Amino acid sequence: MNNKEIPYKIYLEESEMPKQWYNVRADMKNKPAPLLNPGTHQPMTLSELEQVFCTELAKQELDDTTPYFDIPQEIQEFYKMYRPSPLVRAYCLEKKLGTPAKIYYKFEGNNTSGSHKLNSAIAQAYYAKKQGLKGVTTETGAGQWGTALSMACSYFDLDCKVYMVKCSYEQKPFRREVMRTYGASVTPSPSETTEVGKKILAQHPGTTGSLGCAISEAVEVATQTEGYRYVLGSVLSQVLLHQTVIGLETKTALDKYGITPDIIIGCAGGGSNLGGLVSPFVGEMLRGEKNYQVIAVEPASCPSLTRGKYAYDFCDTGMVCPLAKMYTLGSGFIPSANHAGGLRYHGMSSVLSQLYDDGLMEARSVEQTSVFAAAQQFARIEGILPAPESSHAIRVAIDEALKCKETGEEKTIVFGLTGTGYFDMYAYQAFNDGKMSDYIPTDEDLKPGFDSLPKID
Amino acid sequence: MNNKEIPYKIYLEESEMPKQWYNVRADMKNKPAPLLNPGTHQPMTLSELEQVFCTELAKQELDDTTPYFDIPQEIQEFYKMYRPSPLVRAYCLEKKLGTPAKIYYKFEGNNTSGSHKLNSAIAQAYYAKKQGLKGVTTETGAGQWGTALSMACSYFDLDCKVYMVKCSYEQKPFRREVMRTYGASVTPSPSETTEVGKKILAQHPGTTGSLGCAISEAVEVATQTEGYRYVLGSVLSQVLLHQTVIGLETKTALDKYGITPDIIIGCAGGGSNLGGLVSPFVGEMLRGEKNYQVIAVEPASCPSLTRGKYAYDFCDTGMVCPLAKMYTLGSGFIPSANHAGGLRYHGMSSVLSQLYDDGLMEARSVEQTSVFAAAQQFARIEGILPAPESSHAIRVAIDEALKCKETGEEKTIVFGLTGTGYFDMYAYQAFNDGKMSDYIPTDEDLKPGFDSLPKID
Repeated sequence: MNNKEIPYKIYLEESEMPKQWYNVRADMKNKPAPLLNPGTHQPMTLSELEQVFCTELAKQELDDTTPYFDIPQEIQEFYKMYRPSPLVRAYCLEKKLGTPAKIYYKFEGNNTSGSHKLNSAIAQAYYAKKQGLKGVTTETGAGQWGTALSMACSYFDLDCKVYMVKCSYEQKPFRREVMRTYGASVTPSPSETTEVGKKILAQHPGTTGSLGCAISEAVEVATQTEGYRYVLGSVLSQVLLHQTVIGLETKTALDKYGITPDIIIGCAGGGSNLGGLVSPFVGEMLRGEKNYQVIAVEPASCPSLTRGKYAYDFCDTGMVCPLAKMYTLGSGFIPSANHAGGLRYHGMSSVLSQLYDDGLMEARSVEQTSVFAAAQQFARIEGILPAPESSHAIRVAIDEALKCKETGEEKTIVFGLTGTGYFDMYAYQAFNDGKMSDYIPTDEDLKPGFDSLPKID
Repeated sequence: MNNKEIPYKIYLEESEMPKQWYNVRADMKNKPAPLLNPGTHQPMTLSELEQVFCTELAKQELDDTTPYFDIPQEIQEFYKMYRPSPLVRAYCLEKKLGTPAKIYYKFEGNNTSGSHKLNSAIAQAYYAKKQGLKGVTTETGAGQWGTALSMACSYFDLDCKVYMVKCSYEQKPFRREVMRTYGASVTPSPSETTEVGKKILAQHPGTTGSLGCAISEAVEVATQTEGYRYVLGSVLSQVLLHQTVIGLETKTALDKYGITPDIIIGCAGGGSNLGGLVSPFVGEMLRGEKNYQVIAVEPASCPSLTRGKYAYDFCDTGMVCPLAKMYTLGSGFIPSANHAGGLRYHGMSSVLSQLYDDGLMEARSVEQTSVFAAAQQFARIEGILPAPESSHAIRVAIDEALKCKETGEEKTIVFGLTGTGYFDMYAYQAFNDGKMSDYIPTDEDLKPGFDSLPKID
């Protein structure tokens, strides 16, 4: 198929869509370290995990040997409503940059949640429904995950309680309304509805909240309400598993046209998109079949991979969640409020952390004004207004394409365009008005986070 | 191909995309009445029209005999960035409604402008560029057209001056920022930058503007600035021509699977989407080849087809534009501010007006709370958060599907889903909070509009 003309957008047929998710842990020689009980520091057992998570999801979380999981039929049907997502050849961008590189992006923004988050939300809602639960709780920062989960819960007629980081709740009333339109209840966090929320409010009156704090609230409600469980939109291995639908579709589309990427790029917050995109490719690397340059891109203001420590840490501020070994800035790290995009989580998926530690992936940190410059450039040339998160990947994709221009190399670059920026116009406005600034934490700024790391023997 | 299983989404191959637009006027026995010079009441000539519009577009406007126009290669290439748009089989909606009807929708929202408007914006920008112009001016209400034009101008490196109805400018700062991100200048209308704006502000201090007024300002700037022309997003025959890409793709997709629709439904403001969707089908009716039930859906608060008069009228409040014969409520009609969606233009495409007058199309008016109820239902079931405008079509599609449930008829319903509602969350919020009300103008309310109609012999 090498001679086939490559269209602007490669859409798979429905019959070509993945029927299984791929669990990259099965191919990893160095497995990610297990989750630990925050009290005993012993590996979490299924019976402990299923107090917090749906049982099937807890099983997926713990399973690092099964390479493929069947995608239940109901989820496959839901996927067909908004998938397959297009793999787009960025012809216009290539031309504008004058690069010999070939640029592709897997665009996950063509659904109402506006991002890839829906891929895991529908899976988690499905298992909750199957277990006979009444509802689920979760946290949301920028609002993409909360929106995705609201949509998924509405589809399966499940109650959905979202704890939304207070500053986002106030700055993004439209996101909140989308969630409400899908029937979710949305509470600004920290709130008076939970013990942990009250405690945080007492300690930090006037706080505008954080993801770690919202997680703690959502977990508290889930574990103390009959018929509820907690669900999470990133970081966890189960989420990466569901998100492999991105990478599997990408790989099928590339294979169909005989294309082999040289560089694969994704933005990295908790790691769900990046992990989902790169897993099938990293699997080939792990099995010694192929080699790719895999690049994680994170904000310079929250550099968990490039400046974090590889250590066990709390996933949440309230320290009620299991401990995970990951590249982390420490749960006590306060992300800069000046950073407009998402990707502000202090830690990183333990799967990706291990792959990074093993040298299978590299990481770059980028500053936000350069990210928004790339976002604007991309929007004007390729017609899609990208989410600030996704624009981190765009920045590095453009940088790599410009390197090719210098060297004359015809590299094939694939990056993940996780979503759209329609609800991020405050940030764009700041950029349009020249009022956006950069922030790189000093070593001093990072110290409180590192000091908050638990001591694990 | 009748036995082929119909996927959730029918995507055409790039090679199957239309290479020509279809001019339905060529097949009309009763041609739409010509545009008249507002001063002389004589049919507008090319040399008059090209003072306002790009020359090629003025030619398209006047041409009611050429059935097909080649789509220039550059526009075809741009179309490939976001087209073909999917024709979606609403399996989930059908199931939820329990209807034997088969429901399809042509979804035009998967691009950053959020609607079908981009189909004509890119064409108009192309002809402006080809003519060597510096830029174009336009008006925008809800902001979809302004966004689309900003994107198109950015692509061709043209200056873009948008006059945005003041109430939208204030209520939709995010739309404004999207336009600015694409490099457009956005001015709230009425403004002090034009003579007509100053005049309207003097007469109605504190006015929040109207589409008719913004048109007048944009036309004034275009005709008085060297190297500029005015472009319009709806109503005009040239716009309908470009929008036939919607209907042509729809028809090709249906034909591919051997599907013949019984009912075709579209929302109708100025008529660009509806005209574009139905033209190829109406063409078959005009040529006596087939028969369809074609339904235009308009808001009960602005009922130009169902309660308007078929008469020559001004297209704008300032009365600087040519006169068009159309179903109209009169340029003096003040659309209700309580109506949240678009579709608030006082008139209707002269092509659609003539087809309606000839009985080739029917019209329904619907109230906004029932429209938002349909929008919410659709969002929850089909996963797409629709624009309020599009939701008028959803309302009637659901109504027709429920009729089929009663009668047991297995009708095939196709409707146009013109766009997404991400920038309409104020309206959704009002609906979510139970604060949305309906408004049906009394005959008394309609009187000032009808009184404003010009006397043409």
